[in-house]
Amino acid sequence: MQFSSQRKLEHRLKPVFELLRRQDLVQQLVDRSEESSDIATDLVHRRHHQELSAALARLHPADIAHLVEMLPPEDRNSVWKCMPDSTGGNVLVEVSDSVAERLIEDTSADRLLTMGGYLSAEDLGIIEDLLPEDIRERLVAGLKEGDRSWLETTVTYPEDTVGHLMTRDVLVIDSGARIKDVLRYFRRLQDFPDHTDKIFVVDGRHRLEGILPLKALFLNPTELPVTEVMVTDIIAFMPDVDADDAGLAFERYDLVSAPVIDSRDRLLGRLTVDVVMDFLREQAEEDAFLREGLKGDEDLFGPVVESARNRWLWLFLNLLTALVASRVIGIFEGSIEKLVALATLMPIVASIGGNTGNQTVALVVRGLALGQIHRSNVRYLAFKELGVALLNGLIWGSVMGFVVFLLYGNQNLGLVMAGATVLNLLVAAATGIAVPLAMERIGRDPALGSSVMLTFVTDSMGFLIFLGMATLFLLP
Amino acid sequence: MQFSSQRKLEHRLKPVFELLRRQDLVQQLVDRSEESSDIATDLVHRRHHQELSAALARLHPADIAHLVEMLPPEDRNSVWKCMPDSTGGNVLVEVSDSVAERLIEDTSADRLLTMGGYLSAEDLGIIEDLLPEDIRERLVAGLKEGDRSWLETTVTYPEDTVGHLMTRDVLVIDSGARIKDVLRYFRRLQDFPDHTDKIFVVDGRHRLEGILPLKALFLNPTELPVTEVMVTDIIAFMPDVDADDAGLAFERYDLVSAPVIDSRDRLLGRLTVDVVMDFLREQAEEDAFLREGLKGDEDLFGPVVESARNRWLWLFLNLLTALVASRVIGIFEGSIEKLVALATLMPIVASIGGNTGNQTVALVVRGLALGQIHRSNVRYLAFKELGVALLNGLIWGSVMGFVVFLLYGNQNLGLVMAGATVLNLLVAAATGIAVPLAMERIGRDPALGSSVMLTFVTDSMGFLIFLGMATLFLLP
Repeated sequence: MQFSSQRKLEHRLKPVFELLRRQDLVQQLVDRSEESSDIATDLVHRRHHQELSAALARLHPADIAHLVEMLPPEDRNSVWKCMPDSTGGNVLVEVSDSVAERLIEDTSADRLLTMGGYLSAEDLGIIEDLLPEDIRERLVAGLKEGDRSWLETTVTYPEDTVGHLMTRDVLVIDSGARIKDVLRYFRRLQDFPDHTDKIFVVDGRHRLEGILPLKALFLNPTELPVTEVMVTDIIAFMPDVDADDAGLAFERYDLVSAPVIDSRDRLLGRLTVDVVMDFLREQAEEDAFLREGLKGDEDLFGPVVESARNRWLWLFLNLLTALVASRVIGIFEGSIEKLVALATLMPIVASIGGNTGNQTVALVVRGLALGQIHRSNVRYLAFKELGVALLNGLIWGSVMGFVVFLLYGNQNLGLVMAGATVLNLLVAAATGIAVPLAMERIGRDPALGSSVMLTFVTDSMGFLIFLGMATLFLLP
Repeated sequence: MQFSSQRKLEHRLKPVFELLRRQDLVQQLVDRSEESSDIATDLVHRRHHQELSAALARLHPADIAHLVEMLPPEDRNSVWKCMPDSTGGNVLVEVSDSVAERLIEDTSADRLLTMGGYLSAEDLGIIEDLLPEDIRERLVAGLKEGDRSWLETTVTYPEDTVGHLMTRDVLVIDSGARIKDVLRYFRRLQDFPDHTDKIFVVDGRHRLEGILPLKALFLNPTELPVTEVMVTDIIAFMPDVDADDAGLAFERYDLVSAPVIDSRDRLLGRLTVDVVMDFLREQAEEDAFLREGLKGDEDLFGPVVESARNRWLWLFLNLLTALVASRVIGIFEGSIEKLVALATLMPIVASIGGNTGNQTVALVVRGLALGQIHRSNVRYLAFKELGVALLNGLIWGSVMGFVVFLLYGNQNLGLVMAGATVLNLLVAAATGIAVPLAMERIGRDPALGSSVMLTFVTDSMGFLIFLGMATLFLLP
């Protein structure tokens, strides 16, 4: 008997870490000793390769995927070289796209074909867009007819839809059957598809009539017809439904699996909770990254040059916006020369605007993701955030104004500080609501670069308001 | 037969929205007409109350919870007043803590007691810390002996642990049984606990010996002893395991349910995927909020004053850090007076540092959450992020330096700009790694306020580096 818990993942991965560390040491020794013969080195490496392969063979593909994600490039390559071909494909399915892409680049066509040959049509569907064209075609050609047509159907659905995520491993029973027919049908099966908590009752044209929870088979007399115990109030999805929306439904109604049907109620496949969970996790991560202008699945341990390049677009945008904000200051260089305290104080106004605005952005992005924001309440939301900004601007603007008065002994400078803070907080709240809503309206992810956009507005407007008010009211 | 999909949630909520809108109209009419008799008003209101109650009674508690979350305070109150007592408790369980707190505040003690009386011990456990002390005690006292002791055990586990989230609805069979005994036991049950995909095989002392997937009952001859078909390679959790870690295990091994055991392998309860999913969702949202210094479950449609107050701590911290950064500029006021372009350019250096640093923070926070960062790779990660910062600093610093040279025709000012950009990007990368790691080390959430902390460092250091270099190299 063997218990394993999450705690022990590190424990399970330990042998691999030790082998990798030992490899480093051996390599260092080999590098240092001048007399090392090639044969001895080769022997050491081969021995090592075998040990690492054996250690990997003892791990679950999901654990290996986790390991691969957390290794620096060199160690990642060592592990990948020792990966048994039979699990390599599953590891590619489990790791993030950016890591899978790099591994596929570093793998020979022959090895990819062997690894891919071990994959089911559904797993192949997950990585097929990452594979080189010719390998993809040869692997698809190698599938059975039914598998091939299934794969070709699901990949036509956009990536974030139910159709792309559904599985066709479905247990189906004819609506004319009795419970004992179901039990007889089950006994002929070798195994059940994963996450089978219910089976689907269909009519002669494969139209869904109801669902039969497994428990109904235990709790009812075997003579009953399935139509009498089946549930007909069903949560079903069309294949073009957003996976996001399906995810919310899984959370809300605690689903384990749900049928996917076409517009004529015909059963196409099934969506299961494990796929939904993975999807939701990836979405949540992606949102956090998109807000900062990172690639959705940026590889934490990827090579420097590629990581640097991934960030160029946003760095460039950020520089451009910072430059524009700086030109706003440029307009007021005359004022700053007359009263240098303005230069010292202007970043405070900009910074507090950025902070407040990003809070509003975070709230609105979540509200949109959860479907809580709606025509009927967006006005209330805007008034509320503006109200919060006004209230906090009055309170904290006064505090700052007083501090400025104490520092510089200039009463009017304090008043300008307070006024500019209030105004910039209002700008921040309005922008914090408008930017994600506008992104959503034009069909983009509301999180995408919203932080960069917002900071641009709060910086430029902060400088403009503060320096403009100072020029109007303080300078002769 | 009735299909429902996520798409139709809005459709299902529509009658309620319409009733609320009509209520507003009626109220406006009543307010306007001066001759309105109290009796007529009262009649209109009572009629309205009945209609709203009826509309709510047709909705799933999870849908009502969603509705309540997205309503402005006034409408929220109308809905809450019309809520049937039998579903009110379940709605409190489903909404976020901040919304539940407010609803509980606005509810009479009697009504809370009635609503609470409809809840199971487990649902009560979810909201018991939000209830007023005396109501909590009376509700707990009203539970059956077994329910009470269960509730009192689970609430002793910290909120983010498996023990707090586990359920005790578990199907258990003795290890001496045969499959047909299990089937006989099932037939005596009225219903199965939700998310039963396996039952637990225990010995005489309630120690877990193995698990029996439901499908094993269909696929095997009924004469076999359960010990022959049970699975013994089990993923089980101790109650003190972090719910985060359990969540990762559910995702990694595609679990629907998992046993919770004590140190002597005795079965305590069960963790199910629906609870884990809700937990993971809340965590992901909380992280996004904590990074901006928002309360983890800030109510999107809460009242203005409370929302404003929720943000005071971080506004204050932000003001304090902005003030410190501004004092850094204050040191160099003399330099700025001599060369006012410095004031114009310094925010660019600060801004690009903040942007880069926040990208690193987002990467590290995710890496920590997924358990991908480990003693063995943190050095590589630091070198990589510093490498990325150096590379991007050299490239984009040169670009900015050149732009500054074009704008001001001052070659040395361009060089200072380039140098300061490189240095501040290095500072940003180092801080972006150090802040979340330090938070994790001291046992806090790595996301907590990391954005505010980081911006503080990149602002102050950006100003210090740029103005310092300018003072050293440009001014006589």
